[in-house]
Amino acid sequence: MVPHLTTSLTGPLADLERLVLDRRPDIEHWLRNQFLEHEAPIYSSVDLRNSGFKLAPVDTNLFPGGFNNLNPDFMVLCIHAAMSAVQKICPDSRSFLLVPENHTRNLHYLQNVVVLKRILESAGLTVRIGSLIPDLAGPTEVETATGDKLLLEPVIRKGNRVGLEGFDPCAVLLNNDLSGGVPPILAGIEQPVLPPLAAGWTTRRKSHHFHAYDRVADDFAKLLGIDPWLVNPAFSQCGKVNFADKEGEDCLAANVEYVLNEVGEKYKQYGITEAPFAIVKADAGTYGMGIMTVKSVDDVRNLNRKTRNKMSVIKEGQPVHEVIIQEGVYTFESVEGAVAEPVIYMIDQFVVGGFYRVHTSRGTDENLNAPGMSFSPLAFETDCQSPDCGEDPTAPPNRFYTYGVVARLAMLAAALEIEELVARANAPEARAATA
Amino acid sequence: MVPHLTTSLTGPLADLERLVLDRRPDIEHWLRNQFLEHEAPIYSSVDLRNSGFKLAPVDTNLFPGGFNNLNPDFMVLCIHAAMSAVQKICPDSRSFLLVPENHTRNLHYLQNVVVLKRILESAGLTVRIGSLIPDLAGPTEVETATGDKLLLEPVIRKGNRVGLEGFDPCAVLLNNDLSGGVPPILAGIEQPVLPPLAAGWTTRRKSHHFHAYDRVADDFAKLLGIDPWLVNPAFSQCGKVNFADKEGEDCLAANVEYVLNEVGEKYKQYGITEAPFAIVKADAGTYGMGIMTVKSVDDVRNLNRKTRNKMSVIKEGQPVHEVIIQEGVYTFESVEGAVAEPVIYMIDQFVVGGFYRVHTSRGTDENLNAPGMSFSPLAFETDCQSPDCGEDPTAPPNRFYTYGVVARLAMLAAALEIEELVARANAPEARAATA
Repeated sequence: MVPHLTTSLTGPLADLERLVLDRRPDIEHWLRNQFLEHEAPIYSSVDLRNSGFKLAPVDTNLFPGGFNNLNPDFMVLCIHAAMSAVQKICPDSRSFLLVPENHTRNLHYLQNVVVLKRILESAGLTVRIGSLIPDLAGPTEVETATGDKLLLEPVIRKGNRVGLEGFDPCAVLLNNDLSGGVPPILAGIEQPVLPPLAAGWTTRRKSHHFHAYDRVADDFAKLLGIDPWLVNPAFSQCGKVNFADKEGEDCLAANVEYVLNEVGEKYKQYGITEAPFAIVKADAGTYGMGIMTVKSVDDVRNLNRKTRNKMSVIKEGQPVHEVIIQEGVYTFESVEGAVAEPVIYMIDQFVVGGFYRVHTSRGTDENLNAPGMSFSPLAFETDCQSPDCGEDPTAPPNRFYTYGVVARLAMLAAALEIEELVARANAPEARAATA
Repeated sequence: MVPHLTTSLTGPLADLERLVLDRRPDIEHWLRNQFLEHEAPIYSSVDLRNSGFKLAPVDTNLFPGGFNNLNPDFMVLCIHAAMSAVQKICPDSRSFLLVPENHTRNLHYLQNVVVLKRILESAGLTVRIGSLIPDLAGPTEVETATGDKLLLEPVIRKGNRVGLEGFDPCAVLLNNDLSGGVPPILAGIEQPVLPPLAAGWTTRRKSHHFHAYDRVADDFAKLLGIDPWLVNPAFSQCGKVNFADKEGEDCLAANVEYVLNEVGEKYKQYGITEAPFAIVKADAGTYGMGIMTVKSVDDVRNLNRKTRNKMSVIKEGQPVHEVIIQEGVYTFESVEGAVAEPVIYMIDQFVVGGFYRVHTSRGTDENLNAPGMSFSPLAFETDCQSPDCGEDPTAPPNRFYTYGVVARLAMLAAALEIEELVARANAPEARAATA
């Protein structure tokens, strides 16, 4: 009942997986202590890429949709993890206001909201949906992809609290990545907001996340005595790019060259014969928008109009000015012949599930988070944190344990990142700027 | 895939279940705060009895066997809960010494030890088995009911630490209820012992547990505005009984009369037409030994030799001097025609599974923990903490949520009980007595 995987498991990765399994007590002990010092985000999802010679996170989502794609048989894992999160973060809460994205036409996304609501209710919270849709006149029932009903209600602000008509929640759970900025109605409220507003894309940057991940990967590599590159994609960034006006092309070219050279040297070191490539993406972007694959400097020197348009704006029409240039990690995984990458879901510090993002018309060196993608209905049949010990490391359960470890490394980086974002937001100059 | 239940769900219990579901946010909020104040035992199992008009715990085991009877598909629940427990109780531990019972001929029990070991290893601990078998010459491999291998090694004491040859564990996990007393090799060691030695049957008493449960049930009943009797069996106790020599018969008779009268009045109040009965059992007993069903005072006045012999000694030949007289709770549940009672397993504060204890040759008013019992292979298909909201309260998932709540009440009582046992063990006079 596990997806049929065709991975090329030779060289360093098989070694890495064996090592991860052998050093499990040390790894779990280390993670345990990290999460005592750093509060895990209430939830997160991590896109991994497994090239056989390398296993690395390429994106960490702090406002994960897609809970509806998890295996429903393991929903109780989500419930227990949510109970644990609530006990740690806000034990006194009885009710959450869940604030979703505004796109009510994506019926699958609405189903994700239904599943999230159900998880939190099962964890013992009263949950209602507070919508930020500007023209929502009153409570509005919508129907999800599977025919479930969801009541969206307009968020109401009273003094320093938000709520709904007749509902004063203890806390706000954001499932909205704030791509359009921090909504004034949520700014400065006294209720805890999870994740904090500062973790939205207004202030969050992928490059900042991967700087934090550098530190985590280095520590982890030291613990295991390995090359951190085996779990960490090289990256660089450009701060002043305007694709529409062809501004910042030199910065982009220089940084693409830097990343491709870094990767090229590592490929040489490990005897990897594939061509290095890089992914250029909006530093504050999301939803797989504003992303391109480049294999040489020329690829960013001669962008045609279509590509420049594609790269210049992302979700909610936000213009792209900052980009991250990230080492491309081949995915050599496939589900029924189509290119696939694993996506791992976490609540609190626990891996609660995952799925394969599958794309039938994309290559092993392309972003799969794109129209036409599907989610493998054969979700993880076994949990990433539950290796079947004594078994061959190439057996699927052990693969999943390693995936769960690397996903938790990315989630730990997100914990550090959020700490820094919150500290910055609370700094006197930041408060003055928004006053 | 849920066991076929035949319960008579009329009257107060259906009301209770509806109330428990309706008040879920309050109940979970209350439990959350209780477990912030009181440390949940690392693991526990609770025997419940569901008479349709009443749902109550009748026994709480702090050294649960039977993890091998849980649904293996939900093993990951055990793993996550164990991770949570280790993080709270001993985050710095990397290795556990698991000390099982000595009975190596019970191959099902050995399988329980294998499963426990696997859970802890999957939670990231190094685990080895330290046996207290007196004549164990050296490391001995035994085979379990399912053919798994288990290495038992003699426990070694060095100064104030215990371990095995070449193994110095951070903590000791007891899966041995210490019916034979606290083994000198474990007394006064510096490593944490889970559960604490004071929770063994040398010092533990069922009556003490149910006194603590009285307080928990009263608080819970106040929260819900119900009669605590609906979740709490009446009980009394006798301190100086000797069945072999017919001593203490008057005390026993008086207390049986008291309990039967209490129950009779409640039955009258609720219009229940069944005959009240009581269970007399060893106050420090276990393994279903030393237990009898009584329906009138005469039942304890004229004990025949066979019954007196049966009642006079329990596990490891320990004589019975203290007994608890507990209200009998009918079980009106059955699995495939046989009388059944649910047993709920917890690790830390999480319900991780359960099964039906089934007995084909026992009545609805008898102890089922007896030779000839079996475990329903159809374990809980859904977790007790995951109600399918909006569903009919008589549907199985909601039944299980209520079971999970009542089991957690008993486990909370065990938390209070252990606090008191440990405080008593650490009191100056207690230390002087064992010095």
